[in-house]
Amino acid sequence: MIPNTTLQWPAVMEFGAGKLQTLADHLAGRRSIFILADVPVKDALEPIIGELRQRHSRVMLSTDVVPEPPFEALEKLLEPVHEFEPDAVVGVGGGSAMDMAKLVAVLFTGEQKPHEVVGIGNVNGRQVKLIAVATTAGTGSEVTPIAVLTDVAQKLKKGVVSPFLVPDVAIVDPELTVSLPAGVTAATGMDAMTHCIEAYTNRHAHPIIDNIALEGIRLMGGALETAVKDGTDMEARTAMALGSLYGGMCLGPVNTAAVHALAYPLGGEFKVPHGLSNSVLLPFVMAFNLPACITRYANIAAALGVPRAGSDEAMARQAIHAVRRLSVSCGIPSSLKEFSIPESAIPAMAAAAMQVKRLLGNNPREITPADAEAIFRSAYHGRLDE
Amino acid sequence: MIPNTTLQWPAVMEFGAGKLQTLADHLAGRRSIFILADVPVKDALEPIIGELRQRHSRVMLSTDVVPEPPFEALEKLLEPVHEFEPDAVVGVGGGSAMDMAKLVAVLFTGEQKPHEVVGIGNVNGRQVKLIAVATTAGTGSEVTPIAVLTDVAQKLKKGVVSPFLVPDVAIVDPELTVSLPAGVTAATGMDAMTHCIEAYTNRHAHPIIDNIALEGIRLMGGALETAVKDGTDMEARTAMALGSLYGGMCLGPVNTAAVHALAYPLGGEFKVPHGLSNSVLLPFVMAFNLPACITRYANIAAALGVPRAGSDEAMARQAIHAVRRLSVSCGIPSSLKEFSIPESAIPAMAAAAMQVKRLLGNNPREITPADAEAIFRSAYHGRLDE
Repeated sequence: MIPNTTLQWPAVMEFGAGKLQTLADHLAGRRSIFILADVPVKDALEPIIGELRQRHSRVMLSTDVVPEPPFEALEKLLEPVHEFEPDAVVGVGGGSAMDMAKLVAVLFTGEQKPHEVVGIGNVNGRQVKLIAVATTAGTGSEVTPIAVLTDVAQKLKKGVVSPFLVPDVAIVDPELTVSLPAGVTAATGMDAMTHCIEAYTNRHAHPIIDNIALEGIRLMGGALETAVKDGTDMEARTAMALGSLYGGMCLGPVNTAAVHALAYPLGGEFKVPHGLSNSVLLPFVMAFNLPACITRYANIAAALGVPRAGSDEAMARQAIHAVRRLSVSCGIPSSLKEFSIPESAIPAMAAAAMQVKRLLGNNPREITPADAEAIFRSAYHGRLDE
Repeated sequence: MIPNTTLQWPAVMEFGAGKLQTLADHLAGRRSIFILADVPVKDALEPIIGELRQRHSRVMLSTDVVPEPPFEALEKLLEPVHEFEPDAVVGVGGGSAMDMAKLVAVLFTGEQKPHEVVGIGNVNGRQVKLIAVATTAGTGSEVTPIAVLTDVAQKLKKGVVSPFLVPDVAIVDPELTVSLPAGVTAATGMDAMTHCIEAYTNRHAHPIIDNIALEGIRLMGGALETAVKDGTDMEARTAMALGSLYGGMCLGPVNTAAVHALAYPLGGEFKVPHGLSNSVLLPFVMAFNLPACITRYANIAAALGVPRAGSDEAMARQAIHAVRRLSVSCGIPSSLKEFSIPESAIPAMAAAAMQVKRLLGNNPREITPADAEAIFRSAYHGRLDE
């Protein structure tokens, strides 16, 4: 029986090359527009901001995006936006820009403080229009109810989950991803792949999301290497953009699992970018989850182009190897030791990851603290049991 | 290359048995709620209306739903709603109830008249929250930007297409379909199947919609006969409800084609219910379109459970036969002559269908007036060339 679900995606999702140009129309009639953008996209925004001002909108542009945004960076941003009193908030960029913009949209009035909204369902509301424009492929944050902050003191990432964080309009324009460096393309692409894989193999998987996730895996499996090696290949960039959108669409209804939970301390303590943390951990968590995911891994292998052959279990193993091959071919480090993380940090990282219960509860196989430590150790040495 | 598209679906889609109960929460804070409902659903709504009134909302309930709604029926409804001044409009029922509610939501203020909004993009706006609850599986109207009216004088159906007609919330609750008679289950189910098939084989097909449409075909192909023969089978009802939702999700971004165009005069002049008109015509239009759809029909056949064998063309033909078998097994008439339509009406029906350019332009094969007449004649006699 198909289980119940609630799908909450932006009421408008604009997809395709040049779609950034729809931004001005989606802001028609707004008097005061706050835009938070990553620096590299500033030039592309200028003519649009010019148009908005010609239409008598006040526009405040900020590029104060901080990667893996700490609470303090968000708080600093809230003050001037509070003064500005926007009736629309726009985030243009990667996950950090979009997440910060989403949080600004619900917090700038000052009625709630950032630490009060951490967790699920703690945001009281949102009064302004919220638009997210993705420039990476990607976090998928443009369509999710999630924003993640870094607690610098506690060295932990903390998620805010609320329907009020789902943007009203999402714009996914693959042209904006053309200038991304190969390393960012690879890490963000593998992050999007992780979203699809963790949703598809989720304890709370849902047929509607399965259909989206598996198609995302297929699209990105066929396009990521090309996008990394030739960033100007618009066919590959477009397939990656759609795969990333699909990955994002999986996150609200189903969400991620242990890869993301284990990645949190890598970001929180060692400042490894979110996409990279997930990419490195993915094959090792997949290997741990294998016994619980035979059929689904076999389908993933098929979606990644592995010809159907042998037992389901053999086919399932191929999924792990296909993911690792893809990751290596895109230049993702194949072990944690390639980062400046001491092996001695593993027990503390495992303990920190075990705190991310919101995501661990989604994992298809239960993870004990000892399991988490063992996964970190395999990932540290890059040992993938054959 | 994946083409550009705009996806406009309800910001919230509630799916599953019992989801009708979310209606009150989606109406929280609304002062004046107008509900248009099909008569059979009135009892199920009473406790919800009681709850809304306890929460101090004014509620106006009407069951003045007219099948294949004429302009006059809509106009009659607009007067009392104008007096009532709702801040939320809810349609609960099949396509007619939902379409009328959608039009009420954008027209009750009186600033535009019904005939002024016919066509694409002619609705000026909407100021009230709009919720659609589907009780058939179905028209999919709960997620589309479309509402269809009957021009009784001109004996034609006329479509209104606007982003303002997309409900804010769609509720798809398969429990509400359990009491549908077999005939309605069959006709509305084949209508939903037609949405998926016409979107998947559309001149403006899009990969995002292909993925939804083909899954809808697969789900409904496996469930429709059971749902018709045992209406209490919740697994089949749930699969049909999701297939219907998928069919609806195809309509905004891609829409239907010649089946729907040719069905318009059957409804407009001969009052054949919309679902039934489409169901009867579907195999005959598919046969006409075959040369333009070999690969896609082969995929449809596979989705309908036909084992892959023989040439693509042979497999494609199997799609037509599989659709007809499904239709016959559900008790759908296999020819137009089983309705009280004289054969002599065919030229006029063909001429009327040719006016539905909005949909004919989507058809994968160009249709001349002579083609339309030939398709009607095959359908009249129930002759499907082998």
